[in-house]
Amino acid sequence: MAKKKMILDLDTGVDDALAIAYALATPDADLIGIVSSYGNTLVENSAQNSLNLLALLDAPEVPVFLGEAHSSTTDSFETMAISKAIHGENGVGNVDVPKASRSVEKQHAVDFIIEAAHQYQDDLVMVPTGPLTNLAAAFKKDPEIEQLIGNITLMGGALTVPGNVTPYTEANINQDVAAADYVFKHAKHLVMVGLDVTLRTLLTKKETQQWRDLGTEKGRILADIFDYYIDAYYDLDINKNGAALHDPLAVGVAVDPKFVTLLPLNMTVTPDDGRTIGDLDKLKDEHINNYAAIDVDVPFYLERFMNYMIMLLK
Amino acid sequence: MAKKKMILDLDTGVDDALAIAYALATPDADLIGIVSSYGNTLVENSAQNSLNLLALLDAPEVPVFLGEAHSSTTDSFETMAISKAIHGENGVGNVDVPKASRSVEKQHAVDFIIEAAHQYQDDLVMVPTGPLTNLAAAFKKDPEIEQLIGNITLMGGALTVPGNVTPYTEANINQDVAAADYVFKHAKHLVMVGLDVTLRTLLTKKETQQWRDLGTEKGRILADIFDYYIDAYYDLDINKNGAALHDPLAVGVAVDPKFVTLLPLNMTVTPDDGRTIGDLDKLKDEHINNYAAIDVDVPFYLERFMNYMIMLLK
Repeated sequence: MAKKKMILDLDTGVDDALAIAYALATPDADLIGIVSSYGNTLVENSAQNSLNLLALLDAPEVPVFLGEAHSSTTDSFETMAISKAIHGENGVGNVDVPKASRSVEKQHAVDFIIEAAHQYQDDLVMVPTGPLTNLAAAFKKDPEIEQLIGNITLMGGALTVPGNVTPYTEANINQDVAAADYVFKHAKHLVMVGLDVTLRTLLTKKETQQWRDLGTEKGRILADIFDYYIDAYYDLDINKNGAALHDPLAVGVAVDPKFVTLLPLNMTVTPDDGRTIGDLDKLKDEHINNYAAIDVDVPFYLERFMNYMIMLLK
Repeated sequence: MAKKKMILDLDTGVDDALAIAYALATPDADLIGIVSSYGNTLVENSAQNSLNLLALLDAPEVPVFLGEAHSSTTDSFETMAISKAIHGENGVGNVDVPKASRSVEKQHAVDFIIEAAHQYQDDLVMVPTGPLTNLAAAFKKDPEIEQLIGNITLMGGALTVPGNVTPYTEANINQDVAAADYVFKHAKHLVMVGLDVTLRTLLTKKETQQWRDLGTEKGRILADIFDYYIDAYYDLDINKNGAALHDPLAVGVAVDPKFVTLLPLNMTVTPDDGRTIGDLDKLKDEHINNYAAIDVDVPFYLERFMNYMIMLLK
């Protein structure tokens, strides 16, 4: 079996920044590119944040591709006020990250996904941590890749807990409900890492202090970025005990599903309220292509996460 | 360990009839009484149906107690048209079941539950397959029993699939949302056997024909009752492939949880829409008192169920 090739699909984003760090640190996959999405911030800014973070984390060679600027069912996108409050105006906690010398690629994100799917097939791991707009567009442009991509592990959705936008829907799914439903139903193998598990996986300033204590620029910057997020969680009363490692948990599960308990369940995304829920029409199907993470071994994941972060930031 | 003592809390009901049969057939618990609830039919009719079925199934010695006639938040109850369509006007598929000579007990259902809880404590298994009104009333009248009853395994709710009254709520929970929330939060150990698993556990006329083929009165009557239900499921387009063994599955899980996969998850029942969903305030709690059945070994259960039915009906 060849080494896995990973593509991150990010709306970078504070926790997306840690997803990049985890993807660079893990020896279990090569990060071959980042495609950019709207969501926590605008698509162009998301791409620039990804470029800057890659340079900061000593991986300036990883290419970044611009993706769709808005959902498949709208003509434009504006960052929500709540997103700015949680991720900062610049998307990375209002922290100055040195500007990368590299620019975004000329190739469109959708075409990069299609090309990589044909090249790596079963060895390709896609990790979307924002809306599923890019992936749905790639599926529609070249339906052949639906059965080529070996593993899609996404951050998004909520099955056994309420949503975070409404009681029914989670933010990433809510950004493009139609795209999410399309990807859930057409993916060969899709793992949903939703609020069910990410809300249990909290990081505190005790951990970010360890990055700061390394005395490196990248350690300080990552700590500053995530401390902004921890403060936002506290101030907005989302959680007083720490901030959720949404996106980096998805990257971890993508390369090591043993961090979580997976429920095989064909799901549907309801058009009216963006709920990710079991599909009654497929309840007795023998063929299952969706798996929902319903429990997580938090100490196991946190130890791995912190080991990778310290290794990368020192 | 003493042998388990079981109390059924039924709104009898077609599938409740099979719950009685399973409870009488299993060697893993003694059925010490049935308390009666409103729901599929009126409380008095539910009690009479239970008495008649106990007599038919050679267990006329089991006492039946009248419970609450309506929810904790209403003054009266009328059987819904959809319930009559599914269970028949008389609650048991419009089949004539010979009238039992025994009558309901003078003791109220709530007092019987309280008395049994003190007597049997950890060995008591409560199986409510209708609204949770009686159990909530017992908890409120004598809060001490909340921590005495060893096991409450209920049919109701929906966690990973949509509800059957609205997309959010299941019929038993919906009848008395406040009572359900109270029982979920105050029970010592509560197992939810919801639509997640009961909708996968279907019975067809192929199986009921085996009861009919036994050539006994009880075999014919139970087959007639369940065939009405299978036809209703077909005609109302609930399921064309069979009818769900909702209540008897709960009885099976109550004595043998290995039929299902249980997710430890503290739940809340939302006041607005009767949704059974993870309680965000308790997501990181170490103490867990709710367990949701999220998957079921259908062939394993069906084999046991049919063996018990044939043994009982021959």
